[in-house]
Amino acid sequence: MDVTKFAIPEIIFGRGSLNYAGQCALRLGARKVFLVSDSGIEKAGWVGRLMDILKKEGIEWVYYPGVTSNPRDFEVEKGAEMYLKNGTDVIIAIGGGSALDTAKGIAIIASNGGRIRDYEGANRVSRPLPPMVLITTTAGSGSDISQFCIITDVERAVKMSIITRTLVPNISIVDPLILRTKSETLIIHSAVDALAHAVESYLSTISSPFTEMQSLKAIDLIIRHLPRAVETRSLDALEKLSIASVAASMAFSNASLGAEHALAHSLGGHFDMRHGVVHPILLTAVMRFNLDFAETKMGDIGRVILNTSYGSPRETALAGIDKLEEFFASFKVPLRFSQEMIKPEERHYLEPICKMAVHDACNITNPRPASWKELLKICEEVW
Amino acid sequence: MDVTKFAIPEIIFGRGSLNYAGQCALRLGARKVFLVSDSGIEKAGWVGRLMDILKKEGIEWVYYPGVTSNPRDFEVEKGAEMYLKNGTDVIIAIGGGSALDTAKGIAIIASNGGRIRDYEGANRVSRPLPPMVLITTTAGSGSDISQFCIITDVERAVKMSIITRTLVPNISIVDPLILRTKSETLIIHSAVDALAHAVESYLSTISSPFTEMQSLKAIDLIIRHLPRAVETRSLDALEKLSIASVAASMAFSNASLGAEHALAHSLGGHFDMRHGVVHPILLTAVMRFNLDFAETKMGDIGRVILNTSYGSPRETALAGIDKLEEFFASFKVPLRFSQEMIKPEERHYLEPICKMAVHDACNITNPRPASWKELLKICEEVW
Repeated sequence: MDVTKFAIPEIIFGRGSLNYAGQCALRLGARKVFLVSDSGIEKAGWVGRLMDILKKEGIEWVYYPGVTSNPRDFEVEKGAEMYLKNGTDVIIAIGGGSALDTAKGIAIIASNGGRIRDYEGANRVSRPLPPMVLITTTAGSGSDISQFCIITDVERAVKMSIITRTLVPNISIVDPLILRTKSETLIIHSAVDALAHAVESYLSTISSPFTEMQSLKAIDLIIRHLPRAVETRSLDALEKLSIASVAASMAFSNASLGAEHALAHSLGGHFDMRHGVVHPILLTAVMRFNLDFAETKMGDIGRVILNTSYGSPRETALAGIDKLEEFFASFKVPLRFSQEMIKPEERHYLEPICKMAVHDACNITNPRPASWKELLKICEEVW
Repeated sequence: MDVTKFAIPEIIFGRGSLNYAGQCALRLGARKVFLVSDSGIEKAGWVGRLMDILKKEGIEWVYYPGVTSNPRDFEVEKGAEMYLKNGTDVIIAIGGGSALDTAKGIAIIASNGGRIRDYEGANRVSRPLPPMVLITTTAGSGSDISQFCIITDVERAVKMSIITRTLVPNISIVDPLILRTKSETLIIHSAVDALAHAVESYLSTISSPFTEMQSLKAIDLIIRHLPRAVETRSLDALEKLSIASVAASMAFSNASLGAEHALAHSLGGHFDMRHGVVHPILLTAVMRFNLDFAETKMGDIGRVILNTSYGSPRETALAGIDKLEEFFASFKVPLRFSQEMIKPEERHYLEPICKMAVHDACNITNPRPASWKELLKICEEVW
């Protein structure tokens, strides 16, 4: 095996782990925290709860509530200005991928200057970032674990992937109690995002034994526990999804992703659609596209999905993909772009979207090299 | 699940990863490195190789070669004095558990002062340690990954377990090429140590889904690849053992160990025996002792060892233990204390050794509470 790197934050996981946020900030030297979140999390009461925890530890804070879904370059740059103006020292973010990525973007600009687009791609951030404690309120994005940060460049209407080891936060807090205030839709969207992370990182050309183990574990947990989590909202099932998300994030942060996420970023940048809606449409189509180039590994995935083998790896892989399609269908989510996702008159945007996607950093590690024409063919198949 | 924590260093793994040592030190701000190793590693050429790598990056160093097997309190304290006197800033150690634990002990005293015995037990180190890059030359101790440091208190003739999150180094470098210069005996001792880490961490009362996955993976890899590694020295098999050791270390560092390691530390402190020789004697005996208190989990272990199930978890567990005993026997290592390990006239020391072992931090997380009398009974069984 060639040289491979594996880096994750310190993880504090479990029911009530949110209570450690203040102590974590203190441990990182906090005097005045820069707190990032959004109005949804605020309304659910989690921002207030976090402020109480900081108050108890005698930590001051400045609150930046300017997070939107699919965070934009100017929002990040405004946040960085506020960070610097207020003399804050540690960043704490609580929210889904959007809030956490906003915090990461702010950390980059506050310490490295310039515009956020200067850092697009892999390993372009040179100076160290402020200490970060990231608290996830979903079980999907993995931003609290990963070296990824996805920010929309408004001018080019594209989601930029910024990937560098220094984006791994110091501490990730994962408290499954927080998931109880999430909607059914958000639970599904987050879980299928984690599932796509797990599948794509497993198939990635730079996966390692350290990431592969995590990917398969995540697939197993999501297939077994998502239906129950949606039906019953049982804390046990939500906890299992949180474990799956952490495992998938450890994997994709270190093994990267593939063509499916490259497309998802490009689609999200153009249509401002929620990231989680894309995977039930695209994931199995991209898996079929990859099959000839990753037959053994796709057999492994099939075996986990089916909990058994069917003859050859190829047969198991194909049966696994079929089963996965049934799995997505069971949640009554759109399985085609034409189903309330993209208007017929906007279909022609798929071509520029695919042309953009081939340049996304995630496309590099797809097991089968994918040109924009091939990506477009995939998109047309699932129209 | 209650709150659980998972912390590991950044890991750089693979053939030739040693070459990254200089860049890693620079990344941690090194100007003058404190280099720790021992004469065996020096003779094998690895210390010289590492010095060349540092030289290439323009980094100065001070070399502390004073490492012995089962490192002693005064050696660590002498090293700390040398660290401070020479104005060094980053610690790099290359070696087995002894060299890496010596480096960790030096790091504690250099930054926190006092005597090393002041830090015995869990979470007693308060101030941050100097940055550390640890390079393992075995595939077993896991000191390059873990929050453990084992130092002998000469006066009390006991191995002290010092456990704290700040002992997790910044960077661990695992280069399987280094294993090729190891003796057959050392490969076996290291692998059975990693196997004991994997088994005990899986059964630990504070294991978590994040550690359990790693434990089972390590058991699987060691059972499948150690025989081939010993017979053929194939680089592929040695690499698999390295992966197993990293996985087992991620697990035990965060889930701790059990009664078997408590005994191993106490025995090693008294008799100055190599840590790796103890496990083929004690591990299965302690597993039998634990069976009633961890039947399901021991069934899981049995299933991995056997690669199949036999009826109930209990039956699978017992068949797994039998198989493990055959596995140890196949390497022609001592399976009883009386086999060249402890002289008959020293047998009476087992009682004070067991009285010491119950106070070892590892004994706390054993699935079945173990008194010194119960530990003595186990030792007598394998006399």
